[in-house]
Amino acid sequence: MDRPGFIIEPAEAKSMAEASSLTLTQLLPSLITSAQTLARPPISNFRVAAVGLSQSGRILIGVNVEFPCLPLHHSIHAEQFLLTNLSLNNEANLQSFAVSAAPCGHCRQFLQELRGAPDIQIIVTSEPNPKPTSLSRFLPHRFGPHDLLPQQTPLFLEPRNNRLTLPNGVCNGETLDTKLKIAALEAANKSHAPYSDSPSGVAIVDCYRKIYKGSYVESAAFNPSLGPLQAAVVVFIAGGGGEYDEIVGAVLVEKDGAVVRQEGTVRLLLNAISPKCVLQTFLCSVDQSSV
Amino acid sequence: MDRPGFIIEPAEAKSMAEASSLTLTQLLPSLITSAQTLARPPISNFRVAAVGLSQSGRILIGVNVEFPCLPLHHSIHAEQFLLTNLSLNNEANLQSFAVSAAPCGHCRQFLQELRGAPDIQIIVTSEPNPKPTSLSRFLPHRFGPHDLLPQQTPLFLEPRNNRLTLPNGVCNGETLDTKLKIAALEAANKSHAPYSDSPSGVAIVDCYRKIYKGSYVESAAFNPSLGPLQAAVVVFIAGGGGEYDEIVGAVLVEKDGAVVRQEGTVRLLLNAISPKCVLQTFLCSVDQSSV
Ligand SMILES: [Zn+2]
Ligand SMILES: [Zn+2]
Repeated sequence: MDRPGFIIEPAEAKSMAEASSLTLTQLLPSLITSAQTLARPPISNFRVAAVGLSQSGRILIGVNVEFPCLPLHHSIHAEQFLLTNLSLNNEANLQSFAVSAAPCGHCRQFLQELRGAPDIQIIVTSEPNPKPTSLSRFLPHRFGPHDLLPQQTPLFLEPRNNRLTLPNGVCNGETLDTKLKIAALEAANKSHAPYSDSPSGVAIVDCYRKIYKGSYVESAAFNPSLGPLQAAVVVFIAGGGGEYDEIVGAVLVEKDGAVVRQEGTVRLLLNAISPKCVLQTFLCSVDQSSV
Repeated sequence: MDRPGFIIEPAEAKSMAEASSLTLTQLLPSLITSAQTLARPPISNFRVAAVGLSQSGRILIGVNVEFPCLPLHHSIHAEQFLLTNLSLNNEANLQSFAVSAAPCGHCRQFLQELRGAPDIQIIVTSEPNPKPTSLSRFLPHRFGPHDLLPQQTPLFLEPRNNRLTLPNGVCNGETLDTKLKIAALEAANKSHAPYSDSPSGVAIVDCYRKIYKGSYVESAAFNPSLGPLQAAVVVFIAGGGGEYDEIVGAVLVEKDGAVVRQEGTVRLLLNAISPKCVLQTFLCSVDQSSV
């Protein structure tokens, strides 16, 4: 069997569905088993895959990722991987997804960061008669962004610009170091952190000089938040990255004076997965001129 | 108003209920507002209290605790505080609890570690007509211990002994250092970590030479797990501890060769809350003679 990818474009998805006389949502469960081979769960050996359908008709894949020698809160769940994959591909929303096991409470909470979350359709393929069931049935009496944010605040996957600027101003240039710094800044400016106002982003580079960037995603319930290095690791895996120790450099961009600080934890995870990787951190202020 | 405590003994709880012609479960919501004053949420300023009724008729209190300058996954939710309070008081189970806001998904998941979790009754006092509703209604299609563990494996709050022994054997003596080490070992041996087999415990001592110990509690969904220092901080707060910088010493006991390692993260949190605190770590092997 060919190793599957993390994305299926709308045309291909459509022809796959038509070939099986299925709707796109009905097609999702059939992709779970091959997607599970992409998981990286060295602690639990419990492979979870989430296969989602975006508003634009793309099919996107998420898998679980675990990191030994650290506390378990570093783990990335398949649903979090899927949402990061949507963000990476500039998708505006998630219509439905199939998943190989009942979503845990942590994921049901994380999914609340999407606008219209209660209407997302979920198919749990391990259940006896898998059929689409709305997220509101998985997390009734929900706690979420609506409890804490004004209605017009952008939610996850909605456009935003956190307007952070690097300490020494805009940097230009084509050196790898500069590109890495700019990538981390871009990721921080896309970060969804409305609860603590502490956006951050990480860019990593591997030994093939390929750059992967990830944005911190905050949860209204705090603990389910996805760290910026976790997001970058998702992009690394989805983008064809190999072993973690091929990651040779990393830049973290955080907001100066923010109440949430990622640096110590990013360093801990990087040391665990790629001990020789060098981390640089930049504390940025907000560009007041554009406020 | 007097500052409330974190525990109300059965006789007092009974007389409070009788004085108001309420059942014990009906009494819980009336205790929420005063319990909220005990919360320590410097990031969100959103005070959450959970007031629970144990099987033995005690009323126990939990509040949320947040730590600035770190990622949000260090936060302790009121429901996690409540469960740690139950463990501290050797309670066997939780019958019902009132809580000031709808429990988040992370907490609904963490609560699954209790045997009979689906039957716990929850009263959300912020809802228009608060009435007891079972946890199964808050987390239908649940993912939990039953998906991963044999039926006879002890769950959280059930008796267990992880049989860790200190590297240099049993230690005796009355020095503070020895007492701290023994307390951390006891906490590690009580730790609920059936998914990774990586039990751990922390003991902290404050400037009044008072010792507080906390056991790591693992979640079937990994990320909602409660770290051993978090558990010790709960015991510190519930036991009358003051400012965190009064914590002057700490011992972490972990299992040698375990796949989950707490040390780096415990050090990070300790540095943030009490920079002068000294941390010692002991890696312990399992006593095979008693297996
Ligand atoms: Zn999950
Ligand atoms: Zn919670």
